[in-house]
Amino acid sequence: MGRWEPGAGDRLREAALSLYMERGFEQTMVADIAERAGVTARTFFRYFADKREVLFDGTSDLEEKSLAALDAVPVTASALDAVAAVLDAVAEMVGGSRELARKRQTVIMANADLRERELIKLATLSAALADRLRQRGTGDVEAGLAAETSIAVFRVAFSRWVTATDDHDLRDVVRDTLTRLRTLTDAG
Amino acid sequence: MGRWEPGAGDRLREAALSLYMERGFEQTMVADIAERAGVTARTFFRYFADKREVLFDGTSDLEEKSLAALDAVPVTASALDAVAAVLDAVAEMVGGSRELARKRQTVIMANADLRERELIKLATLSAALADRLRQRGTGDVEAGLAAETSIAVFRVAFSRWVTATDDHDLRDVVRDTLTRLRTLTDAG
Repeated sequence: MGRWEPGAGDRLREAALSLYMERGFEQTMVADIAERAGVTARTFFRYFADKREVLFDGTSDLEEKSLAALDAVPVTASALDAVAAVLDAVAEMVGGSRELARKRQTVIMANADLRERELIKLATLSAALADRLRQRGTGDVEAGLAAETSIAVFRVAFSRWVTATDDHDLRDVVRDTLTRLRTLTDAG
Repeated sequence: MGRWEPGAGDRLREAALSLYMERGFEQTMVADIAERAGVTARTFFRYFADKREVLFDGTSDLEEKSLAALDAVPVTASALDAVAAVLDAVAEMVGGSRELARKRQTVIMANADLRERELIKLATLSAALADRLRQRGTGDVEAGLAAETSIAVFRVAFSRWVTATDDHDLRDVVRDTLTRLRTLTDAG
């Protein structure tokens, strides 16, 4: 083990995203990322298993915190209020830097394998949320619908947020999108 | 070109699904499918490009008919009513044989690559529906939400239908699921 390098994880992430944007994901090597971040390849591998992991290393944390947010909602709350709380927690987790989020989204949309991985990530999260809702006593169909709908709201909100030119934070955009869903389903 | 074989496409599909269930998708060869269906491998390839295509050959037809169903809805209808009409059309297309649908679903859920392909199919359909809704004058956010929500409803409804023991047809289950979504978002 080499010595610990303060901020190396963040520098590696920023270097990787910039290189993926400049050269494409496929064409970027771990050695290039390490060089741009001013560290060794060995340091890179202390933070990430491979170059794809730079884009997806928050996945298990995302699921864990989403379920924790769900557990914190009283079981008497409606299924939609429960997933609204989850969406708030997710927005707080991934809504930190819009610039990084925008780069990440651009890189992912440009590569079929990465798009698949992102779809799988969200489908897995949806299934985990539905299971937990069922455990809380939500009916089978409602649990599935609430979970799938929350992913739908998140996808639309996230896309709005990364492409927006105003300075709303992600949580506000998520809440607004959920409100619009209610309006949409009322009006239909 | 060999001579045309009446019903060979359906026989090949049923043979393939049965073999995928018995041996697993990976372990089944095109030659096995042809043999079970009583045709040559050459006949198989007149119907399907490869063994995966047996499971996904309706994809472009699904998108085409979904968009046609959307086009048939007056532009004055709400976005949700528009996608409800699309869901009816989709249910009619894929709701023919529950036994075959159940086998297909079992095979897909047992294989990571096939699950990915199915996710991509639905995400692609969602994007196409959202684009068409925008062309019809639906607002950007509402179009994305209506399309994503329709996929959410379809996923939940389809899963209910293939696992159900009663004899409701898929269209009824889709409509009931959409009604439950309205209730869910009202109550939240």
